Amino acid sequence: MPLLPRRFKKLKSILNRRISDLTILVEQVEKPHNLSAIMRTCDAAGVLEAHAVARETKTRTFNSTAQGSQKWVPLKDHKNIEAAALFLKKQGFKLYGTNLSVDAIDYRYCDYTGPTAFVLGAEKWGLSEPATRLMDAAIYIPMRGMVQSLNVSVAASALLFEALRQREVSGTLPQNGEGLPNEIYEKILFEWCYP
Amino acid sequence: MPLLPRRFKKLKSILNRRISDLTILVEQVEKPHNLSAIMRTCDAAGVLEAHAVARETKTRTFNSTAQGSQKWVPLKDHKNIEAAALFLKKQGFKLYGTNLSVDAIDYRYCDYTGPTAFVLGAEKWGLSEPATRLMDAAIYIPMRGMVQSLNVSVAASALLFEALRQREVSGTLPQNGEGLPNEIYEKILFEWCYP
Ligand SMILES: C[S@@+](CC[C@H](N)C(=O)[O-])C[C@H]1O[C@@H](n2cnc3c(N)ncnc32)[C@H](O)[C@@H]1O
Ligand SMILES: C[S@@+](CC[C@H](N)C(=O)[O-])C[C@H]1O[C@@H](n2cnc3c(N)ncnc32)[C@H](O)[C@@H]1O
Repeated sequence: MPLLPRRFKKLKSILNRRISDLTILVEQVEKPHNLSAIMRTCDAAGVLEAHAVARETKTRTFNSTAQGSQKWVPLKDHKNIEAAALFLKKQGFKLYGTNLSVDAIDYRYCDYTGPTAFVLGAEKWGLSEPATRLMDAAIYIPMRGMVQSLNVSVAASALLFEALRQREVSGTLPQNGEGLPNEIYEKILFEWCYP
Repeated sequence: MPLLPRRFKKLKSILNRRISDLTILVEQVEKPHNLSAIMRTCDAAGVLEAHAVARETKTRTFNSTAQGSQKWVPLKDHKNIEAAALFLKKQGFKLYGTNLSVDAIDYRYCDYTGPTAFVLGAEKWGLSEPATRLMDAAIYIPMRGMVQSLNVSVAASALLFEALRQREVSGTLPQNGEGLPNEIYEKILFEWCYP
Protein backbone atom coordinates (compact mmCIF):
# COMPACT_ATOMS: atom_id res chain seq x y z
CA MET A 1 0.00 0.00 0.00
CA PRO A 2 1.40 3.42 -0.88
CA LEU A 3 2.00 5.85 1.98
CA LEU A 4 -0.83 8.36 2.21
CA PRO A 5 0.21 12.03 2.53
CA ARG A 6 -1.91 12.38 5.67
CA ARG A 7 -0.16 9.44 7.28
CA PHE A 8 3.24 10.83 6.35
CA LYS A 9 2.35 14.17 7.93
CA LYS A 10 1.17 12.48 11.11
CA LEU A 11 4.34 10.38 11.42
CA LYS A 12 6.50 13.44 10.90
CA SER A 13 4.58 15.49 13.45
CA ILE A 14 5.15 12.81 16.08
CA LEU A 15 8.83 12.43 15.25
CA ASN A 16 9.23 16.21 15.39
CA ARG A 17 8.36 16.03 19.07
CA ARG A 18 10.37 12.94 20.00
CA ILE A 19 12.96 13.42 22.76
CA SER A 20 16.16 11.41 22.64
CA ASP A 21 17.51 12.55 26.01
CA LEU A 22 14.61 11.46 28.20
CA THR A 23 14.09 7.78 28.92
CA ILE A 24 13.26 5.10 31.42
CA LEU A 25 15.03 1.89 32.38
CA VAL A 26 12.93 -0.83 33.96
CA GLU A 27 14.59 -3.54 36.03
CA GLN A 28 12.54 -6.73 36.07
CA VAL A 29 9.14 -5.12 35.74
CA GLU A 30 7.28 -8.25 34.78
CA LYS A 31 3.54 -7.74 34.68
CA PRO A 32 2.36 -7.23 31.10
CA HIS A 33 -0.17 -4.56 32.02
CA ASN A 34 2.42 -2.54 33.93
CA LEU A 35 5.00 -2.72 31.17
CA SER A 36 2.27 -1.96 28.63
CA ALA A 37 1.09 1.12 30.51
CA ILE A 38 4.69 2.30 30.86
CA MET A 39 5.33 1.95 27.12
CA ARG A 40 2.14 3.81 26.34
CA THR A 41 3.16 6.64 28.70
CA CYS A 42 6.60 6.74 27.08
CA ASP A 43 4.99 7.15 23.67
CA ALA A 44 2.72 9.91 24.99
CA ALA A 45 5.66 11.68 26.66
CA GLY A 46 7.72 11.57 23.47
CA VAL A 47 10.38 9.15 24.71
CA LEU A 48 12.41 7.98 21.70
CA GLU A 49 13.63 4.67 23.14
CA ALA A 50 13.09 2.86 26.44
CA HIS A 51 15.35 0.37 28.19
CA ALA A 52 14.90 -2.84 30.12
CA VAL A 53 16.74 -5.48 32.06
CA ALA A 54 14.66 -8.63 32.16
CA ARG A 55 14.88 -11.99 33.80
CA GLU A 56 16.40 -14.23 31.19
CA THR A 57 13.82 -16.97 31.10
CA LYS A 58 10.86 -14.92 30.01
CA THR A 59 9.78 -13.54 26.69
CA ARG A 60 8.14 -10.21 26.96
CA THR A 61 4.45 -9.75 26.40
CA PHE A 62 2.36 -6.64 26.08
CA ASN A 63 -1.39 -6.51 26.40
CA SER A 64 -4.15 -4.23 25.16
CA THR A 65 -3.13 -1.57 27.68
CA ALA A 66 -0.15 -0.83 25.41
CA GLN A 67 -2.46 0.12 22.53
CA GLY A 68 0.34 -0.69 20.11
CA SER A 69 2.79 1.80 21.67
CA GLN A 70 5.51 -0.87 21.62
CA LYS A 71 5.62 -0.36 17.84
CA TRP A 72 6.51 3.30 18.30
CA VAL A 73 8.88 3.16 21.24
CA PRO A 74 11.57 0.50 20.92
CA LEU A 75 12.32 -1.22 24.21
CA LYS A 76 16.01 -2.02 24.20
CA ASP A 77 17.01 -5.08 26.20
CA HIS A 78 20.24 -5.17 28.18
CA LYS A 79 21.73 -8.32 29.56
CA ASN A 80 22.14 -6.97 33.07
CA ILE A 81 21.90 -3.76 35.04
CA GLU A 82 25.63 -3.04 34.72
CA ALA A 83 25.45 -3.18 30.91
CA ALA A 84 22.34 -1.02 30.87
CA ALA A 85 23.83 1.61 33.18
CA LEU A 86 27.07 1.72 31.18
CA PHE A 87 25.17 2.10 27.91
CA LEU A 88 23.15 5.01 29.23
CA LYS A 89 26.03 6.73 31.00
CA LYS A 90 28.13 6.58 27.83
CA GLN A 91 25.36 8.51 26.12
CA GLY A 92 25.52 11.15 28.84
CA PHE A 93 22.39 10.15 30.74
CA LYS A 94 22.10 10.88 34.41
CA LEU A 95 20.51 7.89 36.15
CA TYR A 96 17.78 8.66 38.65
CA GLY A 97 17.03 5.56 40.69
CA THR A 98 13.67 5.37 42.39
CA ASN A 99 14.18 4.50 45.95
CA LEU A 100 11.96 4.63 48.98
CA SER A 101 14.87 4.92 51.41
CA VAL A 102 15.27 7.86 53.77
CA ASP A 103 18.13 9.57 51.99
CA ALA A 104 16.41 9.78 48.61
CA ILE A 105 15.42 13.22 47.28
CA ASP A 106 11.84 14.42 46.70
CA TYR A 107 11.49 14.08 42.89
CA ARG A 108 10.21 17.65 42.60
CA TYR A 109 13.59 19.01 43.67
CA CYS A 110 15.71 17.55 40.89
CA ASP A 111 16.44 19.06 37.51
CA TYR A 112 15.37 16.87 34.57
CA THR A 113 16.14 19.30 31.76
CA GLY A 114 19.43 17.53 31.00
CA PRO A 115 19.74 13.93 29.71
CA THR A 116 17.58 11.98 32.15
CA ALA A 117 16.91 8.28 32.69
CA PHE A 118 14.43 7.22 35.35
CA VAL A 119 15.20 3.76 36.67
CA LEU A 120 12.25 1.76 37.98
CA GLY A 121 12.22 -1.44 39.95
CA ALA A 122 10.30 -4.69 40.15
CA GLU A 123 6.72 -4.76 41.44
CA LYS A 124 7.60 -6.93 44.40
CA TRP A 125 11.01 -5.84 45.60
CA GLY A 126 11.88 -2.56 43.92
CA LEU A 127 15.34 -1.71 42.56
CA SER A 128 18.04 -4.28 43.24
CA GLU A 129 21.03 -3.51 45.42
CA PRO A 130 23.46 -3.52 42.45
CA ALA A 131 21.16 -1.17 40.54
CA THR A 132 20.91 1.19 43.48
CA ARG A 133 24.68 1.43 43.67
CA LEU A 134 24.94 2.36 39.97
CA MET A 135 22.60 5.35 40.19
CA ASP A 136 23.71 8.99 40.04
CA ALA A 137 20.90 10.06 42.36
CA ALA A 138 18.11 8.47 44.38
CA ILE A 139 14.67 10.06 44.11
CA TYR A 140 11.24 9.30 45.50
CA ILE A 141 7.68 10.50 45.08
CA PRO A 142 6.36 11.58 48.51
CA MET A 143 3.63 9.32 49.82
CA ARG A 144 0.85 10.70 52.02
CA GLY A 145 -1.03 7.44 52.49
CA MET A 146 -1.10 4.10 54.28
CA VAL A 147 0.22 2.06 51.35
CA GLN A 148 3.98 2.23 51.09
CA SER A 149 4.50 2.50 47.36
CA LEU A 150 2.82 3.40 44.09
CA ASN A 151 2.10 1.08 41.23
CA VAL A 152 5.23 1.12 39.05
CA SER A 153 3.48 2.47 35.94
CA VAL A 154 1.92 5.25 38.01
CA ALA A 155 5.36 6.15 39.40
CA ALA A 156 6.84 6.17 35.89
CA SER A 157 4.17 8.57 34.71
CA ALA A 158 4.57 10.96 37.64
CA LEU A 159 8.30 11.17 36.87
CA LEU A 160 7.95 11.56 33.09
CA PHE A 161 5.26 14.22 33.38
CA GLU A 162 7.36 16.15 35.89
CA ALA A 163 10.28 16.06 33.42
CA LEU A 164 7.98 17.33 30.64
CA ARG A 165 6.70 20.08 32.90
CA GLN A 166 10.22 21.26 33.68
CA ARG A 167 11.18 21.17 30.03
CA GLU A 168 8.09 23.09 29.07
CA VAL A 169 8.96 25.75 31.65
CA SER A 170 12.54 25.94 30.35
CA GLY A 171 11.37 26.02 26.73
CA THR A 172 13.29 22.89 25.76
CA LEU A 173 10.51 20.63 24.51
CA PRO A 174 11.20 19.84 20.86
CA GLN A 175 8.58 20.85 18.30
CA ASN A 176 10.42 20.54 15.00
CA GLY A 177 12.78 17.60 15.28
CA GLU A 178 15.33 19.33 17.52
CA GLY A 179 14.96 16.46 19.98
CA LEU A 180 17.09 14.02 17.99
CA PRO A 181 20.11 14.00 15.67
CA ASN A 182 19.30 14.48 12.01
CA GLU A 183 20.54 11.12 10.75
CA ILE A 184 18.50 9.29 13.38
CA TYR A 185 15.47 11.36 12.47
CA GLU A 186 15.76 10.35 8.82
CA LYS A 187 16.37 6.70 9.67
CA ILE A 188 13.36 6.42 11.96
CA LEU A 189 11.10 8.32 9.60
CA PHE A 190 11.98 5.83 6.88
CA GLU A 191 11.33 2.86 9.17
CA TRP A 192 7.99 4.29 10.31
CA CYS A 193 6.95 4.99 6.72
CA TYR A 194 7.93 1.56 5.39
CA PRO A 195 7.70 -0.89 8.27
CA MET B 1 -5.89 -6.94 70.06
CA PRO B 2 -5.21 -3.62 71.78
CA LEU B 3 -4.13 -0.73 69.60
CA LEU B 4 -0.37 -0.29 69.76
CA PRO B 5 0.88 3.28 70.33
CA ARG B 6 3.03 3.05 67.20
CA ARG B 7 0.05 2.06 65.11
CA PHE B 8 -2.02 4.89 66.56
CA LYS B 9 0.71 7.39 65.73
CA LYS B 10 0.94 6.09 62.16
CA LEU B 11 -2.83 6.30 61.61
CA LYS B 12 -2.90 9.84 62.96
CA SER B 13 0.02 10.95 60.82
CA ILE B 14 -1.78 9.73 57.68
CA LEU B 15 -5.07 11.32 58.67
CA ASN B 16 -3.26 14.58 59.43
CA ARG B 17 -2.38 14.78 55.74
CA ARG B 18 -5.73 13.69 54.28
CA ILE B 19 -7.37 16.15 51.90
CA SER B 20 -11.15 16.33 51.80
CA ASP B 21 -11.37 18.77 48.87
CA LEU B 22 -9.45 16.76 46.29
CA THR B 23 -11.05 13.72 44.71
CA ILE B 24 -11.72 11.69 41.61
CA LEU B 25 -14.91 10.37 40.09
CA VAL B 26 -14.62 7.38 37.79
CA GLU B 27 -17.36 6.65 35.29
CA GLN B 28 -17.47 2.98 34.37
CA VAL B 29 -13.80 2.25 34.81
CA GLU B 30 -14.11 -1.51 34.90
CA LYS B 31 -10.75 -3.26 34.85
CA PRO B 32 -9.76 -4.33 38.36
CA HIS B 33 -6.10 -3.44 37.89
CA ASN B 34 -6.95 0.06 36.68
CA LEU B 35 -9.36 0.75 39.50
CA SER B 36 -6.87 -0.77 41.94
CA ALA B 37 -4.03 1.43 40.72
CA ILE B 38 -6.30 4.49 40.92
CA MET B 39 -7.29 3.73 44.52
CA ARG B 40 -3.65 3.23 45.46
CA THR B 41 -2.74 6.58 43.89
CA CYS B 42 -5.63 8.24 45.73
CA ASP B 43 -4.30 6.89 49.02
CA ALA B 44 -0.78 8.09 48.19
CA ALA B 45 -2.08 11.52 47.18
CA GLY B 46 -4.06 11.88 50.41
CA VAL B 47 -7.52 11.75 48.85
CA LEU B 48 -10.07 11.29 51.65
CA GLU B 49 -12.84 9.70 49.60
CA ALA B 50 -13.19 8.69 45.94
CA HIS B 51 -16.33 8.40 43.84
CA ALA B 52 -17.64 6.03 41.21
CA VAL B 53 -20.50 5.43 38.86
CA ALA B 54 -20.57 1.78 37.91
CA ARG B 55 -22.56 -0.38 35.58
CA GLU B 56 -25.27 -1.88 37.72
CA THR B 57 -24.72 -5.52 36.98
CA LYS B 58 -21.21 -5.84 38.30
CA THR B 59 -19.75 -6.12 41.76
CA ARG B 60 -16.49 -4.32 42.13
CA THR B 61 -13.24 -6.19 42.52
CA PHE B 62 -9.77 -4.99 43.38
CA ASN B 63 -6.61 -6.94 42.84
CA SER B 64 -3.13 -6.98 44.34
CA THR B 65 -2.29 -3.71 42.56
CA ALA B 66 -4.48 -1.96 45.14
CA GLN B 67 -2.25 -3.17 48.00
CA GLY B 68 -5.17 -2.77 50.37
CA SER B 69 -5.66 0.95 49.59
CA GLN B 70 -9.41 0.35 49.24
CA LYS B 71 -9.48 -0.03 53.03
CA TRP B 72 -8.10 3.48 53.47
CA VAL B 73 -9.92 5.37 50.75
CA PRO B 74 -13.67 4.72 50.67
CA LEU B 75 -15.02 4.52 47.13
CA LYS B 76 -18.51 5.98 47.23
CA ASP B 77 -20.91 4.57 44.67
CA HIS B 78 -23.48 6.78 42.96
CA LYS B 79 -26.39 5.42 41.00
CA ASN B 80 -25.71 7.51 37.93
CA ILE B 81 -23.56 10.38 36.73
CA GLU B 82 -26.23 12.98 37.47
CA ALA B 83 -26.44 11.91 41.12
CA ALA B 84 -22.65 11.86 41.42
CA ALA B 85 -22.24 15.31 39.89
CA LEU B 86 -24.98 16.76 42.09
CA PHE B 87 -23.44 15.25 45.21
CA LEU B 88 -20.03 16.72 44.45
CA LYS B 89 -21.29 20.12 43.33
CA LYS B 90 -23.33 20.46 46.53
CA GLN B 91 -20.07 20.04 48.42
CA GLY B 92 -18.52 22.83 46.39
CA PHE B 93 -16.39 20.70 44.09
CA LYS B 94 -15.48 21.96 40.66
CA LEU B 95 -15.75 19.08 38.19
CA TYR B 96 -12.88 18.71 35.73
CA GLY B 97 -13.88 16.30 33.00
CA THR B 98 -11.11 14.62 31.06
CA ASN B 99 -11.76 15.03 27.43
CA LEU B 100 -9.65 14.56 24.36
CA SER B 101 -11.71 16.98 22.27
CA VAL B 102 -10.19 20.07 20.69
CA ASP B 103 -11.70 22.66 22.99
CA ALA B 104 -10.43 21.08 26.22
CA ILE B 105 -7.76 22.95 28.22
CA ASP B 106 -4.20 21.74 28.80
CA TYR B 107 -4.35 20.40 32.38
CA ARG B 108 -1.31 22.45 33.41
CA TYR B 109 -3.24 25.69 32.92
CA CYS B 110 -6.02 25.10 35.43
CA ASP B 111 -5.99 25.93 39.10
CA TYR B 112 -6.57 22.93 41.38
CA THR B 113 -6.01 24.65 44.72
CA GLY B 114 -9.77 24.94 45.29
CA PRO B 115 -12.16 21.98 45.76
CA THR B 116 -11.31 19.75 42.78
CA ALA B 117 -12.82 16.56 41.38
CA PHE B 118 -11.20 14.93 38.36
CA VAL B 119 -13.69 12.91 36.36
CA LEU B 120 -12.30 9.96 34.42
CA GLY B 121 -13.95 7.85 31.77
CA ALA B 122 -14.20 4.23 30.71
CA GLU B 123 -11.21 2.45 29.18
CA LYS B 124 -12.95 1.90 25.87
CA TRP B 125 -15.05 4.97 25.21
CA GLY B 126 -14.01 7.67 27.67
CA LEU B 127 -16.47 9.99 29.41
CA SER B 128 -20.09 9.63 28.37
CA GLU B 129 -21.95 12.44 26.64
CA PRO B 130 -24.18 13.12 29.69
CA ALA B 131 -21.10 13.25 31.91
CA THR B 132 -19.34 15.66 29.58
CA ARG B 133 -22.30 18.03 29.73
CA LEU B 134 -22.25 18.06 33.55
CA MET B 135 -18.62 19.16 33.84
CA ASP B 136 -17.47 22.63 34.89
CA ALA B 137 -14.39 22.43 32.67
CA ALA B 138 -12.87 20.04 30.15
CA ILE B 139 -9.16 19.30 30.52
CA TYR B 140 -6.67 17.07 28.75
CA ILE B 141 -3.09 15.92 29.17
CA PRO B 142 -1.16 16.80 26.01
CA MET B 143 -0.08 13.75 24.01
CA ARG B 144 3.14 13.76 22.00
CA GLY B 145 2.87 10.22 20.65
CA MET B 146 1.16 7.95 18.17
CA VAL B 147 -1.27 6.42 20.63
CA GLN B 148 -4.29 8.62 21.19
CA SER B 149 -4.84 8.27 24.91
CA LEU B 150 -3.18 7.30 28.17
CA ASN B 151 -4.11 4.41 30.37
CA VAL B 152 -6.82 5.72 32.72
CA SER B 153 -4.84 5.09 35.93
CA VAL B 154 -1.85 6.89 34.43
CA ALA B 155 -4.05 9.86 33.53
CA ALA B 156 -5.51 9.92 37.06
CA SER B 157 -2.04 10.04 38.56
CA ALA B 158 -0.81 12.83 36.28
CA LEU B 159 -3.81 14.92 37.35
CA LEU B 160 -3.57 14.18 41.07
CA PHE B 161 0.17 14.85 41.21
CA GLU B 162 -0.29 18.14 39.36
CA ALA B 163 -2.91 19.15 41.95
CA LEU B 164 -0.51 18.22 44.77
CA ARG B 165 2.27 20.20 43.11
CA GLN B 166 0.09 23.30 42.88
CA ARG B 167 -1.02 22.95 46.47
CA GLU B 168 2.55 22.51 47.63
CA VAL B 169 3.53 25.68 45.79
CA SER B 170 0.60 27.55 47.33
CA GLY B 171 1.33 26.15 50.78
CA THR B 172 -2.09 24.53 51.16
CA LEU B 173 -1.16 20.88 51.67
CA PRO B 174 -2.44 19.82 55.09
CA GLN B 175 0.10 18.55 57.61
CA ASN B 176 -1.82 18.60 60.88
CA GLY B 177 -5.38 17.66 60.10
CA GLU B 178 -6.35 20.99 58.50
CA GLY B 179 -7.49 19.05 55.44
CA LEU B 180 -10.76 17.87 56.98
CA PRO B 181 -13.40 19.06 59.45
CA ASN B 182 -12.73 18.14 63.05
CA GLU B 183 -15.74 15.90 63.61
CA ILE B 184 -14.93 13.88 60.48
CA TYR B 185 -11.32 13.60 61.61
CA GLU B 186 -12.40 12.14 64.95
CA LYS B 187 -14.90 9.79 63.35
CA ILE B 188 -12.42 8.38 60.83
CA LEU B 189 -9.66 8.07 63.40
CA PHE B 190 -11.99 5.98 65.54
CA GLU B 191 -12.96 3.78 62.59
CA TRP B 192 -9.33 3.27 61.58
CA CYS B 193 -8.33 2.43 65.13
CA TYR B 194 -11.17 -0.02 65.72
CA PRO B 195 -12.19 -1.43 62.35
C1 LIG C 1 5.72 -1.36 43.86
S1 LIG C 1 7.24 -0.58 43.86
C2 LIG C 1 8.31 -1.68 44.77
C3 LIG C 1 7.95 -1.76 46.21
C4 LIG C 1 8.93 -2.53 47.01
N1 LIG C 1 8.21 -3.18 48.06
C5 LIG C 1 10.02 -1.63 47.62
O1 LIG C 1 10.10 -1.58 48.84
O2 LIG C 1 10.78 -1.01 46.90
C6 LIG C 1 7.84 -0.86 42.25
C7 LIG C 1 8.57 0.31 41.67
O3 LIG C 1 7.68 1.40 41.51
C8 LIG C 1 8.38 2.61 41.65
N2 LIG C 1 7.80 3.38 42.78
C9 LIG C 1 6.75 3.02 43.55
N3 LIG C 1 6.48 3.95 44.47
C10 LIG C 1 7.38 4.94 44.28
C11 LIG C 1 7.62 6.20 44.92
N4 LIG C 1 6.87 6.63 45.92
N5 LIG C 1 8.64 6.94 44.46
C12 LIG C 1 9.40 6.53 43.43
N6 LIG C 1 9.23 5.36 42.80
C13 LIG C 1 8.23 4.57 43.21
C14 LIG C 1 9.83 2.25 41.91
O4 LIG C 1 10.50 2.21 40.68
C15 LIG C 1 9.71 0.85 42.49
O5 LIG C 1 10.89 0.12 42.32
C1 LIG D 1 -8.29 5.11 27.52
S1 LIG D 1 -9.09 6.61 27.79
C2 LIG D 1 -10.50 6.55 26.74
C3 LIG D 1 -10.14 6.61 25.30
C4 LIG D 1 -11.35 6.73 24.40
N1 LIG D 1 -11.03 6.06 23.19
C5 LIG D 1 -11.69 8.19 24.11
O1 LIG D 1 -11.66 8.56 22.97
O2 LIG D 1 -11.99 8.95 25.05
C6 LIG D 1 -9.85 6.35 29.35
C7 LIG D 1 -9.82 7.56 30.23
O3 LIG D 1 -8.48 7.89 30.56
C8 LIG D 1 -8.37 9.29 30.75
N2 LIG D 1 -7.38 9.80 29.78
C9 LIG D 1 -6.66 9.11 28.89
N3 LIG D 1 -5.85 9.91 28.19
C10 LIG D 1 -6.03 11.16 28.65
C11 LIG D 1 -5.47 12.43 28.34
N4 LIG D 1 -4.54 12.59 27.41
N5 LIG D 1 -5.94 13.50 29.02
C12 LIG D 1 -6.87 13.35 29.98
N6 LIG D 1 -7.42 12.19 30.32
C13 LIG D 1 -7.02 11.10 29.67
C14 LIG D 1 -9.75 9.87 30.54
O4 LIG D 1 -10.41 9.94 31.77
C15 LIG D 1 -10.39 8.82 29.64
O5 LIG D 1 -11.80 8.87 29.73
